[in-house]
Amino acid sequence: MKNIAILGNGVVGSGTARVLLSKAEKIKAETGEDINLKYVFVRHDYEGCEYRDLFEYDYDTIKNDKEIDVVAEVMGGVHPAYEYVKDALMRGKSVVTSNKQLIAECGYELMNIAKEKNVNLLFEGAVAGAVPVIHGIRNCLKANDVKRVYGIINGTTNYILSKMISDGQSYADAIKKAQELGYAEADPSRDVDGIDSCRKLCILADIVYGNHIMPQTVNTIGIRDIEKTDTDILSQNKKAIKLLGYAAKAENGKTVVCTEPFVVGDDSVLFATNDAFNAVAVDTDNADTIVFYGRGAGSFPTASAVVNDIVECINAENTIYPAWGAERNDLLESYENFVFKHYVRAVISVAKVKELFADAVILSEGKECAFLTSEMSENSLSEKLEGISVKAKYKTI
Amino acid sequence: MKNIAILGNGVVGSGTARVLLSKAEKIKAETGEDINLKYVFVRHDYEGCEYRDLFEYDYDTIKNDKEIDVVAEVMGGVHPAYEYVKDALMRGKSVVTSNKQLIAECGYELMNIAKEKNVNLLFEGAVAGAVPVIHGIRNCLKANDVKRVYGIINGTTNYILSKMISDGQSYADAIKKAQELGYAEADPSRDVDGIDSCRKLCILADIVYGNHIMPQTVNTIGIRDIEKTDTDILSQNKKAIKLLGYAAKAENGKTVVCTEPFVVGDDSVLFATNDAFNAVAVDTDNADTIVFYGRGAGSFPTASAVVNDIVECINAENTIYPAWGAERNDLLESYENFVFKHYVRAVISVAKVKELFADAVILSEGKECAFLTSEMSENSLSEKLEGISVKAKYKTI
Repeated sequence: MKNIAILGNGVVGSGTARVLLSKAEKIKAETGEDINLKYVFVRHDYEGCEYRDLFEYDYDTIKNDKEIDVVAEVMGGVHPAYEYVKDALMRGKSVVTSNKQLIAECGYELMNIAKEKNVNLLFEGAVAGAVPVIHGIRNCLKANDVKRVYGIINGTTNYILSKMISDGQSYADAIKKAQELGYAEADPSRDVDGIDSCRKLCILADIVYGNHIMPQTVNTIGIRDIEKTDTDILSQNKKAIKLLGYAAKAENGKTVVCTEPFVVGDDSVLFATNDAFNAVAVDTDNADTIVFYGRGAGSFPTASAVVNDIVECINAENTIYPAWGAERNDLLESYENFVFKHYVRAVISVAKVKELFADAVILSEGKECAFLTSEMSENSLSEKLEGISVKAKYKTI
Repeated sequence: MKNIAILGNGVVGSGTARVLLSKAEKIKAETGEDINLKYVFVRHDYEGCEYRDLFEYDYDTIKNDKEIDVVAEVMGGVHPAYEYVKDALMRGKSVVTSNKQLIAECGYELMNIAKEKNVNLLFEGAVAGAVPVIHGIRNCLKANDVKRVYGIINGTTNYILSKMISDGQSYADAIKKAQELGYAEADPSRDVDGIDSCRKLCILADIVYGNHIMPQTVNTIGIRDIEKTDTDILSQNKKAIKLLGYAAKAENGKTVVCTEPFVVGDDSVLFATNDAFNAVAVDTDNADTIVFYGRGAGSFPTASAVVNDIVECINAENTIYPAWGAERNDLLESYENFVFKHYVRAVISVAKVKELFADAVILSEGKECAFLTSEMSENSLSEKLEGISVKAKYKTI
C-alpha cells in the first residue's frame, strides 16, 4: 500500500483528491499497489466536501507521519509550499506538484535535494495543466536537439484574445466576459501581464536547455495593450495574436527567452488553439515540429497530470528527473539580438515601408500601414523605424 | 556498449542509421552506454551511402551474433519482417519497429513473446511517425479512462484533402500533385483506400481498449469518392473532410472502430492539421481532449521515434509494455449502431429535411440540400433517407 498526502484543497487539490479516489482500481492495476489517500491538508473547512474525514489542519501530523510515500503539493505560491516540499524531500518522500511559481523559482534547489535523497520531484501539472508536455520533451525526443520551444501556456489570456479575434471584442469587453466566467481573477495581472506564462516558459526552458532561468530575468510583455485594430487586421490576413512563452537556441549556443504577444499564421496549430486551451510546440532537428495540445487548467485536467505523476513516483525505481543546472545568466542571449519576422503598424506610407523594408508584406494600408518584415533583430527594426510613429509591434512565429 | 542492428535501409532505415550515428553522444548521455551501430541489413546495394561498411547481406550473420542488444526492424511488410522480429525476440533481443502492418496484424503474438522473454517490443514509429502518441497514451493518461481516440494518421490522404479544401482542387488533380511530390505512390491504394490508416487505428485501439483488433474486421472507407462539391460546401461552413481512424467505447462497454472520412469543425485542432501532418486526439474523462501533433512520416521524423524507442529499450530495466489481450470480436460493437452527427448531401428540399430531421442544420440549399443531422445511428439515418437520392454522407466529429 502507498500512502498519499495532498497539501491543499482548492481547485487543483480537490480535483486531485477526487481523481485519486475514483481511479483507485485503475492505479492499482498500473502500480500493483493499493493507493490510500491518507490526508488532505487544509487551512480552513470545506463544508459539504465528501472526503472531509481526510482533512488534516495540522501540517506537523503529516510531516511526522512516516507512512506517507508521496506528497502532492497543490497549494500554489512559494510560501509555505517551498518549506513543505523541501521538508518532505529531505525526509525521503517523493513530491509531485502543480505549482509553477515554486518550480520556476526554486526548482533547481529542490530537484537537487530530490536527487540527493533518491526520490522524485515531478511537476507535469505545473505547465499546461493536463497536457503531457514535460513528459513528452523529457522522454520522447531523445533523438533530437530542440531548436525552440514555444507555446500558449496561459488559458485566461488565450480566452481573452480568442474573444477579441473571433468575436471582434475589445480587450476591455473580453476581460469582463472572462471574469464573469471565472476564467480571470478580479485582479487579472498575473495572467494578463504574462507573469504566469513566464513562469511556465522558464520551466520548459530549464528542461530543454539545461540551466535554471529565473522568471524575473525574462523579458515579459502581457496583453493589456493589444488593440482591436491589430487583431482585426490580422484576422483579415488569416493571422492571430497569441501570448507565447518562447525559448530558442541562438547560433552562438546561448538561450533566448521571452514571453510576449506573437503573431501566428493559420499554418500553425497555435492559430487554432482557442479559448482556454493550451498548446506547446517543440521545433527539433529530426522530428521537425511536435505539438502537445489540451486543457491548460481546471480541476480535473490538472489533477490528471498530478495523479499521473503520483503513479510515476510509485512505479519509479530510480530518480526519474535529474536536476538541471544552476542559473547561468552568461548563457542567456538578449532577445533583442535574436532575429524574428516582425509585425508593425505605424503612421507610414506604403512607399516608405517598401523603401525601408525590401521584402515587406503589406497587410493593410491607409493613414497607417500594417506590414510584416523579413527576419531581423529587434535592434535593427528599431533603427529602421527611428522617427516613425509606431502604433503596434509584435514578433511573428 | 550496446550493439544495434538495423533491418532495412529504405526511407526509415537510412534515417534511423543517420540519426543513430549523429546522436551517439546524446544517447550516451541518456543511457550511459556507447551505442554501436553494428549492422545495417540490406537486400541490395545503396551506392554512395556513407555507412556502406555496415551493410550486411546475410541475415544469418546478424541472427547469430550474440552481441546484438537491440534490433530495429524498419523493412515494412509482414514477411520476412515477422520471422526476423520473432526470431530476435525468441533469442532475447529487444526489438523496435516502425512497421504498422506487422504490429497491427501480429502484435498480440509478438508482444507475448517479448513479455515471456522479458525483452521489449516498442513501435512508436508505427503510428503517426514522429508524434509520441503511443508513449503519451501509455504513460501520461494513467488517471484517465479514454472515451475515444481518433486522428489523422495518414499524411498522403491528408495532403490530398488539404489541396482539395484549401486550393479547391479535384481529387484527380490533388493525387497527381501528391504523386509528383513523392507523397503518394504510383499505386496509391494503400493510402487512399484507408488501409494504412486502418492499421494504425487498430494499434491505437489495441493499446487503449486492451484487445487485439485485426484490420480486416474494421469498416474502412477511403477518400476516392470525395467530391469537390462537398469539400466546397464544407469550406464555406468552416468545416473540412478528414480521413480519420476512430475508436470509441460504446455505452455497453464494447469498442467501436472505423476508418473513414469524417467532417470536422474549425473548433478542432484536426481542422488545422494540414498537408502531410498527423494529429491524434484522445478524449478522456478527466483530462478532456489531448492532441498529439506532428510529422506522420518521412525519414528523420520516423527515425526520431525509432531511435527514441532504442534508447528506451536500453534504459528499461523491465518489460515496458505488457501485451494486450487476444482478439475478441464479441467485444466489438458495430459502428452502425453507434451514434454520430452526420453530414448529408441529397436531392431533397429544405422543407423535407426539416420534416425528417427536427434539428437539422442546413449548410447549402438548391436542387440538392446539404445538412447536418443531430446524433443518430447509421441505421436510423438510412431508414430516414429511404427512397431519397443521397449524393454524399459522412460522419462528423
